[in-house]
Amino acid sequence: MRIVDIISKKVDKKELTEEEINFFINNYVNENIPDYQASALLMAIRLNGMNDLETTFLTKAMLNSGEIIDWSFLNKTIVDKHSTGGVGDKVSLALCPILAALDLTIAKMSGRGLAHTGGTLDKLESINGFKISLSDNEFKNIVKEHNIAIVSQNEKLDPADKKIYALRDVTGTVQSIPLIASSIMSKKLATGSNCILLDVKCGNGAFMKNIDEAKQLGKLMIAIGKKLNKQIAVEITNMEQPLGKAIGNKIEVLEAMDTLKGNGPKDFTEIIYSSGSTLLMLANKAGSEVEAKKMIDEVIKNGKAYKKFLEWIEAQHGDVNLLENKNWFNPKNKYEIKAKISGYLKIKSAIDFGIVAMKLGAGRAKKEDTIDYEAGIYLNKISNDYVNKGDTLFTLYSSKEIDKSLENEIMNVIDFNEKPYKIDLVFAKLS
Amino acid sequence: MRIVDIISKKVDKKELTEEEINFFINNYVNENIPDYQASALLMAIRLNGMNDLETTFLTKAMLNSGEIIDWSFLNKTIVDKHSTGGVGDKVSLALCPILAALDLTIAKMSGRGLAHTGGTLDKLESINGFKISLSDNEFKNIVKEHNIAIVSQNEKLDPADKKIYALRDVTGTVQSIPLIASSIMSKKLATGSNCILLDVKCGNGAFMKNIDEAKQLGKLMIAIGKKLNKQIAVEITNMEQPLGKAIGNKIEVLEAMDTLKGNGPKDFTEIIYSSGSTLLMLANKAGSEVEAKKMIDEVIKNGKAYKKFLEWIEAQHGDVNLLENKNWFNPKNKYEIKAKISGYLKIKSAIDFGIVAMKLGAGRAKKEDTIDYEAGIYLNKISNDYVNKGDTLFTLYSSKEIDKSLENEIMNVIDFNEKPYKIDLVFAKLS
Repeated sequence: MRIVDIISKKVDKKELTEEEINFFINNYVNENIPDYQASALLMAIRLNGMNDLETTFLTKAMLNSGEIIDWSFLNKTIVDKHSTGGVGDKVSLALCPILAALDLTIAKMSGRGLAHTGGTLDKLESINGFKISLSDNEFKNIVKEHNIAIVSQNEKLDPADKKIYALRDVTGTVQSIPLIASSIMSKKLATGSNCILLDVKCGNGAFMKNIDEAKQLGKLMIAIGKKLNKQIAVEITNMEQPLGKAIGNKIEVLEAMDTLKGNGPKDFTEIIYSSGSTLLMLANKAGSEVEAKKMIDEVIKNGKAYKKFLEWIEAQHGDVNLLENKNWFNPKNKYEIKAKISGYLKIKSAIDFGIVAMKLGAGRAKKEDTIDYEAGIYLNKISNDYVNKGDTLFTLYSSKEIDKSLENEIMNVIDFNEKPYKIDLVFAKLS
Repeated sequence: MRIVDIISKKVDKKELTEEEINFFINNYVNENIPDYQASALLMAIRLNGMNDLETTFLTKAMLNSGEIIDWSFLNKTIVDKHSTGGVGDKVSLALCPILAALDLTIAKMSGRGLAHTGGTLDKLESINGFKISLSDNEFKNIVKEHNIAIVSQNEKLDPADKKIYALRDVTGTVQSIPLIASSIMSKKLATGSNCILLDVKCGNGAFMKNIDEAKQLGKLMIAIGKKLNKQIAVEITNMEQPLGKAIGNKIEVLEAMDTLKGNGPKDFTEIIYSSGSTLLMLANKAGSEVEAKKMIDEVIKNGKAYKKFLEWIEAQHGDVNLLENKNWFNPKNKYEIKAKISGYLKIKSAIDFGIVAMKLGAGRAKKEDTIDYEAGIYLNKISNDYVNKGDTLFTLYSSKEIDKSLENEIMNVIDFNEKPYKIDLVFAKLS
C-alpha cells in the first residue's frame, strides 16, 4: 500500500477502505508518512468529501491511535457534552454540576479558546488554584468521588487528532465536515464516555455559519455514533448573538454560578434546561422532557447543583472562598456603552462581540497569547430588551486601558427596532 | 499576506492574484513556506483548477525563480521543441539537426525518461563520449558555432519547477493541466527560446490519455505564450502505438540517423515533416507548409541534415566514428517474436511496449535505476502491415537474459485483422 495511491483514489472521488484509512493514520502518527502527503490527502478530503462509512473508519483509526480511558471499574454510564464553541458559551460550567448532582457521571476533557471563541479550560483556570492537569489517578478518583471532573486534553489520547488538527489549521482544511466530525468524535470517545450530547453552535459567532451545514455535521456524528455503538444526541443552537450576558472568563464563571442558583439569564438558562433534559433522557435517567426539566429544577432550587459546583471546584484545588467573595472579579478598568436612541435592542453579530472581548484581553489572537481573566463584556441589555436613550447597553472590562474605538465596533453590529423580533435558541434536535 | 489565506481562497474556487502567486513561489523556493502548505495548495489547484491568467502568473513566477538564459548576443530567434513524452519518441534527435541545417538555432534542454517513456538525454548518452552537461560558455559557443546543442537541465534554471515537480510526484497532484502547463512553459522559457513547438502526445502511451485533455493543455499553453509574448504552436500527436520502429536508446539513435538519411519509418518521417514545417513557419522561415516540407526534403536529400547531426554529436564530444560503425549497436541477447496467425497487424497499446522495453533494461522503473543502452525493441512489423504466420513481428534486445514471459505481454496487446484500420498521426494542430 502506498499513500500516493490513497491520495489519488480520493482525488478521483473514490471511497477509501478501512485498511487504507488505517494505513494513513497509523503511518502518519508513526511519522512514516510526512506532513506534505498528509496535507495533500486532507485537502483532497476537504474538497471531495468522505461518506459516513469512511468518516467512521477515520474516527475509529484516530480513536485507536492512542490510549482510551477505561471507566469500567465505575460500572456507570459516562456522559459528556461537547460544544463546537461560541461567544459566551459557558454551558459546561453550569450543566456539568447539574448532571453530577443528578447522579450522572461526567469525566470531561476540554480545550482552550482561540480567536473569538472562549474555552472552558481558560474559564476554569481563571479560578485561583484550579488545576486542569491531573494525574490519571487523581482524575479517576475525583470522578469516582464527586461524579465530575473537567481536565485538559491528555497527550496520550488521540495523538492522530493532535497531529491532524495542527496540520489542518495551517493548510486551509479546517472547514471540512468529515474532518470536523472525526476530530470531535474520536476525541470524545477516547475519554471513555458512551453517552454524548453534541451542541453544534450555528451562526456568525460559531464555526458553522449555516444551519444546513450544522445539520450535516450533526447527522454525520450521529451516524458515526450508531456505527460505533454509542448514544449520541445533537442540538443545533443559536450563535447569532452571544449566549447569556457575560463574555470573558471570570465574568462567565460568575454567570454560571448565578445560573446554578436559579438567577441566570433567561436564554442561557433555557439552553441549560434543554441540553440537560436531552442528556438525562439519553442516559435513561428521565422518561420525558417534562420529567427531566423538573429534575433539573429541583437540584437548582434545593441548592444541590450549586453545592456540587463548589464541591467540584474544590476537588480540583480551586479556591472556593475567594471565588465566592464579591471582590473576586475586580477589573481595573471599565467602560460603559450608552444607548444614543430608544427602542428594542437587536444584537446582529456574535462574532464581533467575541472579537471585542478578545481585544480587551479575554481571548487569544494567537495560541501563544496570555489571557487577562478580568477582561470581558457584560451585556446590561440583550436582544429584545427595550432600551431608553442613555441606558447602559454594555460594559467593557479589562486590566489594561480600554481602547475607545471598541465602542464603534460594537455599535456597528446592533440595531434599535420598534418591535422585538423572534429568536430561536434551539434550531434543531437530532438523534 | 499569509499562505493559509491563499490556500483557502483556492479552496473557495476564487481566482488568485499575481501578487499571491508570486508570494507562494518566492517563499516556497526560499523555504519560508513548508512542503505541507505547498502540497495543500497544489491539491486545491489540482481539484479546483486555475484559469489562463492564474496559470500565466504561475508560469512567470516559476520562470523568474531562477536564471533565464540570455541569447541576445546571437541576435537570432531561438527555437525549441518539447514533447510530453511517449514510447519510441526520438523526434528531437532527428528534427533538431534538420532545423539547424535550415539555419534555425536550437539551444535545448532536455530530461531523462521515467517509467515507460524514454528521455532524449538517455538516448544521447548512449553515444560514447557524448556530454550532456556543458559549462554555460561551452553551451553558448556550440550553439553559436553549430546552431544546435541539447544539454541536461541546468540547476540554476527554474528551481520552483524542480521543487514543485518533486512534490507533485508524491502527492497525487501530477495530473493537473494548469500545473503541467506552467511546468512545461516555465522550463522552456527559462532556456531563452521564444519560438516553441509543443508536441502533446496523446494516447495510452502518453501522459494525456484523451484528446480533450490534450487540447485543453495545448490551448492553455498557447494562451500563456500569447500573454508572455512568445510564439507557441501545439501539435497533438498519436501515442496509441509506439512512434517509428525502434524503442530503446542506441536503437532509437540509429533510427533517427536513418531518418536523417531519408530512410526512416513512414510514420516517424511524417511526424518529422509535420513538426518541422510547423516550426519553420512559426519562425518565419517558410511561408507555407508546402514550402517548408520542400526545404526539409532538400536538406535530407542533399545530406546536409545528416552532416549537421554528425557535426553536432562531435561538438558535444560524441564518438562519431564508433557511432557510424555497424557494430556500435551490439546487444548480447535477442529474442524474436513470431506471428502465430496471418492478417493485418494492429498494435493496441503503446504503454505496454514501453513497459516491456523498460523491463528489458531500456528505461527506469525508479529514478535511481541505470539504463542498458543496448536494450530495446525493434518492430519488424508495425500496425497495418500484412503479416504471414511465422513472420518475425518484433525483436527484443538486452544485455541480460531475456525473460520469455515478455512475449505474452506483447501478444496481449496486438491483434490481427482482415483489413487495415485508419491511423491519424497528428490529431490536431493549434496555434
